[in-house]
Amino acid sequence: MSKVRALVLERQHELALREIELPMEVGPGMVKIAVHTVGVCGSDVHYYTHGKIGPFVVNAPMVLGHEAAGTITELGAGVTHLAVGDRVCMEPGIPDPNSRASRLGMYNVDPAVTFWATPPIHGVLTPVVVHPANYTFKLPDNVSFAEGAMVEPFAVGMQAATKARIVPGDTAVVLGAGPIGTMVAIAALAGGCARAIVADLAQPKLDIAARYQGVIPVNIRETNLVDEVKRLTDGWGADVVFECSGSPKAWETIMNLPRPGGTIVVVGLPVDPAPFDVATASSRELRIETVFRYAHQYERAIALFASGRVDLKPLISETFAFEDSVKAFDRAVEARPSDVKLQIRVAG
Amino acid sequence: MSKVRALVLERQHELALREIELPMEVGPGMVKIAVHTVGVCGSDVHYYTHGKIGPFVVNAPMVLGHEAAGTITELGAGVTHLAVGDRVCMEPGIPDPNSRASRLGMYNVDPAVTFWATPPIHGVLTPVVVHPANYTFKLPDNVSFAEGAMVEPFAVGMQAATKARIVPGDTAVVLGAGPIGTMVAIAALAGGCARAIVADLAQPKLDIAARYQGVIPVNIRETNLVDEVKRLTDGWGADVVFECSGSPKAWETIMNLPRPGGTIVVVGLPVDPAPFDVATASSRELRIETVFRYAHQYERAIALFASGRVDLKPLISETFAFEDSVKAFDRAVEARPSDVKLQIRVAG
Amino acid sequence: MSKVRALVLERQHELALREIELPMEVGPGMVKIAVHTVGVCGSDVHYYTHGKIGPFVVNAPMVLGHEAAGTITELGAGVTHLAVGDRVCMEPGIPDPNSRASRLGMYNVDPAVTFWATPPIHGVLTPVVVHPANYTFKLPDNVSFAEGAMVEPFAVGMQAATKARIVPGDTAVVLGAGPIGTMVAIAALAGGCARAIVADLAQPKLDIAARYQGVIPVNIRETNLVDEVKRLTDGWGADVVFECSGSPKAWETIMNLPRPGGTIVVVGLPVDPAPFDVATASSRELRIETVFRYAHQYERAIALFASGRVDLKPLISETFAFEDSVKAFDRAVEARPSDVKLQIRVAG
Amino acid sequence: MSKVRALVLERQHELALREIELPMEVGPGMVKIAVHTVGVCGSDVHYYTHGKIGPFVVNAPMVLGHEAAGTITELGAGVTHLAVGDRVCMEPGIPDPNSRASRLGMYNVDPAVTFWATPPIHGVLTPVVVHPANYTFKLPDNVSFAEGAMVEPFAVGMQAATKARIVPGDTAVVLGAGPIGTMVAIAALAGGCARAIVADLAQPKLDIAARYQGVIPVNIRETNLVDEVKRLTDGWGADVVFECSGSPKAWETIMNLPRPGGTIVVVGLPVDPAPFDVATASSRELRIETVFRYAHQYERAIALFASGRVDLKPLISETFAFEDSVKAFDRAVEARPSDVKLQIRVAG
Repeated sequence: MSKVRALVLERQHELALREIELPMEVGPGMVKIAVHTVGVCGSDVHYYTHGKIGPFVVNAPMVLGHEAAGTITELGAGVTHLAVGDRVCMEPGIPDPNSRASRLGMYNVDPAVTFWATPPIHGVLTPVVVHPANYTFKLPDNVSFAEGAMVEPFAVGMQAATKARIVPGDTAVVLGAGPIGTMVAIAALAGGCARAIVADLAQPKLDIAARYQGVIPVNIRETNLVDEVKRLTDGWGADVVFECSGSPKAWETIMNLPRPGGTIVVVGLPVDPAPFDVATASSRELRIETVFRYAHQYERAIALFASGRVDLKPLISETFAFEDSVKAFDRAVEARPSDVKLQIRVAG
Repeated sequence: MSKVRALVLERQHELALREIELPMEVGPGMVKIAVHTVGVCGSDVHYYTHGKIGPFVVNAPMVLGHEAAGTITELGAGVTHLAVGDRVCMEPGIPDPNSRASRLGMYNVDPAVTFWATPPIHGVLTPVVVHPANYTFKLPDNVSFAEGAMVEPFAVGMQAATKARIVPGDTAVVLGAGPIGTMVAIAALAGGCARAIVADLAQPKLDIAARYQGVIPVNIRETNLVDEVKRLTDGWGADVVFECSGSPKAWETIMNLPRPGGTIVVVGLPVDPAPFDVATASSRELRIETVFRYAHQYERAIALFASGRVDLKPLISETFAFEDSVKAFDRAVEARPSDVKLQIRVAG
Repeated sequence: MSKVRALVLERQHELALREIELPMEVGPGMVKIAVHTVGVCGSDVHYYTHGKIGPFVVNAPMVLGHEAAGTITELGAGVTHLAVGDRVCMEPGIPDPNSRASRLGMYNVDPAVTFWATPPIHGVLTPVVVHPANYTFKLPDNVSFAEGAMVEPFAVGMQAATKARIVPGDTAVVLGAGPIGTMVAIAALAGGCARAIVADLAQPKLDIAARYQGVIPVNIRETNLVDEVKRLTDGWGADVVFECSGSPKAWETIMNLPRPGGTIVVVGLPVDPAPFDVATASSRELRIETVFRYAHQYERAIALFASGRVDLKPLISETFAFEDSVKAFDRAVEARPSDVKLQIRVAG
Repeated sequence: MSKVRALVLERQHELALREIELPMEVGPGMVKIAVHTVGVCGSDVHYYTHGKIGPFVVNAPMVLGHEAAGTITELGAGVTHLAVGDRVCMEPGIPDPNSRASRLGMYNVDPAVTFWATPPIHGVLTPVVVHPANYTFKLPDNVSFAEGAMVEPFAVGMQAATKARIVPGDTAVVLGAGPIGTMVAIAALAGGCARAIVADLAQPKLDIAARYQGVIPVNIRETNLVDEVKRLTDGWGADVVFECSGSPKAWETIMNLPRPGGTIVVVGLPVDPAPFDVATASSRELRIETVFRYAHQYERAIALFASGRVDLKPLISETFAFEDSVKAFDRAVEARPSDVKLQIRVAG
């Protein structure tokens, strides 16, 4: 254990940038990383404002942050695919490699996963962290630390796009233009969709999404989405609908959006059970997919950044110094519609 | 148009075996069939007892029956794959072959489908019917008319088993041991499952299902199904769950039945929107499939009957003479738990 | 039948722009189209230079051309989704909608397909053509006739990308940078690949392909492709390999290109059976897919053009006047490495 | 290391039942097993007769045998899902759980796999063995040791059936009625096929396969297989073809067996590259799958045995005492057409 400075959530509503003891032993298969940039995620903010997410309750001080990139400073025994000095990003969830889910290739649904900044596991808003090399990914020279810290939220979009089993040229609908909806729309387009009809009530969010080629923004304050999707698809419906709003209202009409034989991917989590219109879904033989975080998406996301086919830099709304971490969180609490991603530069 | 005798639903609660005018022209691509055996389906009975199913209302006298087998007596122009004298069964839903859904291979979700005994289309409880040759399927010598008339309900099970994308050796759970649940269980086993855990409240229904090798009956009056599935799968969960009860109660716990990465196939239609526990479904990344009737299943079902891998004869509870058709329906209204399928022998 | 001017292949080596009688009746479900632009395809050229392709032999004068766009001038009975004046492109292969393959949604493998400019069916290098409305697709305002005539060759790439079942972020290898290889690379990228490693001997072809973001050109005169793919994928291999060269040489090493569990999509047709290294393929459990033309790709391709996600205009190397059609073909025979697509403007 | 008695292949052509030193430490996650029954596999016999298989050469004495069942006698630290006294069977290939292939769920194609009785790894024809608990599977009470030792060869059939992605009611063709072909046919039927047309030159092999319901034997000395498959499928072709003969001759006509859009699963390994008729395959858009051993099949196979849906006892041709192990191998070398599986009872 070593003392390091970190952004600590002491309890609901109380953040402190202070010293804390964290384990720093670089065991076999592990690497030590100098953290450079960490993104602020909605879940970090939710722990700050609510002290819990579902069954996960902050009962003890916890370091926040799980969207991170940095530089390798030390290698544990047996690590061969990385080197000291490599610029990397890190996957925050670590499964048991011998669990049944992991062996089947679905490590994200392994109940034994430990995940940064999910109580009681500390996060990564701190200058140094030790992490398994298998969940640490080298960044190509043309991918910045800031982009590296965007891999984590984009991986959620990639998982949704993967589950959709997009056929090249598909038409997608994305419900919700918050950070997740925007990531999903971009991943769906990168993943083969010809266009993504993105629906939201907030025009500033739609304006940001609409910067991406292939996005068709629909402000549902003004436009009936079911009618608009019909109009844009000659009455046929969308191939894939991504539910990213988490709103129970979305479930009232969502089954009218896909084409016969189409798909709904549920990304947003409503608080209560959602009203599932089985009759309408069945009459079109819809398929509904759910997602839980992501698996095997980091290298894929990095490859899309490196080739230039995905550029998330326009989504980084503002970058804060490590010393201003609390400010960054208070800005995130404001939830400005023009903010997509706030980041904190931990290093230099 | 010719006058023929038929079982006519005059209006809700009123059946008559009487003469009615039906079209008898054998156009190009059509065949004329002497009807031999017709099964009584729950939907036929529902029109009798309720006068409607959802948006389909019996506003005029309608011939009932859509599960039928018979013998070809006349060929329309251009029909080459069938011959007079062929023993056949008939698929009751006829799509527009030029619709977008049909061209994609999903003719069952073509909104233009016309379906026997679905208002205002007449059914087949009558001695002669004219039908498109493309939806008429030859029965091998070792498949009886009675079995031929079972192809239609079994096709529903086949569609569910197909949508499940069963992997050989899967464990299935089937909620509901009525005729559809039983068909689904048999199709799931024939389709590759090692075992089908069939759940119901009615012991006589479970006893019938349990005659099939691989069925594990669970009486949910006595046994907690979630616990039992866990016990039978070493805590992992079922690969596929078929919801065939149509009961909203089933939706309260259904998400706890599949394994991580598992599948739910929804066959039963609840009257109201079902409460969909998105949080639990997502934590296991479940896939939910819906079905609507069937497509491309007749030849597959007949092949399974012909090879002996599926034997539905034990499910034929009683056979009525055509003259006793009304009796057959009144017996069906009783809904005896020991009855699975009642059939009417129209010919001889 | 009406007399129209057309580019007629009289026999091997002999082309004439002359009058010919073609059927002009606009039956039910048909449309009449004023042809605007027609692309010159390798198969057109092959009939010109060899008089046959495999079993298809030019035994009588035949109009060439099957990559076409134009404007609707007349509607047959029952056509409702198109209007006179619509700018359209046309799919050249017409199946029997009632064949077994068509009903299953695979109309491209229906043996009854008739295909423009495939003996004895006339092509479309003529100012007017009558075609089924179901295989005629409206072009959005922002898609030109020239691009409309590119839909046909791009649909081949789309079919290959669809069969590959690309997962977002995949790495592709494309063997051969001719017109088909280039189309496949662009479709693979649009269909979700992060990058396409394109291999060829001819640097000018690679230079053209390399204009597209995500293409990594490899000149196999200078670079060992297996080593280069390993280098680019950290020793793992490509997710998908598209064989577009048709060269038997490609088959000597192709099984060393994909990753374990990877895929090969065979687009190029070698003249003789290819040497299939089963042992290497099996040790990686490779999947091999084959393609035959395309099915259901026109609307998808048009959607990608319309959204701006695919731009094929840089591939149109030169456009000839209708009167210069023979010149266009003689230029195509030259097979300049810097030529990708030559087009003929039939109208005005 | 402890001295144990074992069947040792000293070198090509020389077997000895003698003492040998084997490691017996039961480390964490390991179990010790009293071996009960071991099947004789074609690969064991091939090492005996040829001293090598492809790149795997017997350079030092090696214990043979990899199809094994037994009883747990000791648990290593951390093993909780098994108990002393459990009757089990063992999967012979052990991957690196942290390899890229293993993490993706495809541990069978991990190059680091070590496999029993594949030089230089010792096999299991010996009374005691230590093995990872994760690759040791409990047998239900109604599955015998003899059946437990059949799980390994049947897993090969299961892998082939899984890769085929069988749709319920499919028609399969199996080329070759040796032990592997027979296993594949049974797995294909259990996995959803309505029938398996099994082709071979040896009538005794066909007679054994034909005992299984759904198998249609075809002696290709007398019957043209392409014609027969056409006849049995009304000219359409088979849904899935399993190549299990390893014969280059099979490749001359195999592409004519599947239906349009059908599948070939290659199980048999020809010595040289096979002549792949790409033109015919493409005209039907065939998919070709390859298999390498198996992954995640043990529990599925055991479940099929336990439910009674698969019964392999008729395939056990004779059982030898451990002392007669050399006799068992010499009998296997005879390759009697009426022998499917020879087993050796190591215990009691």
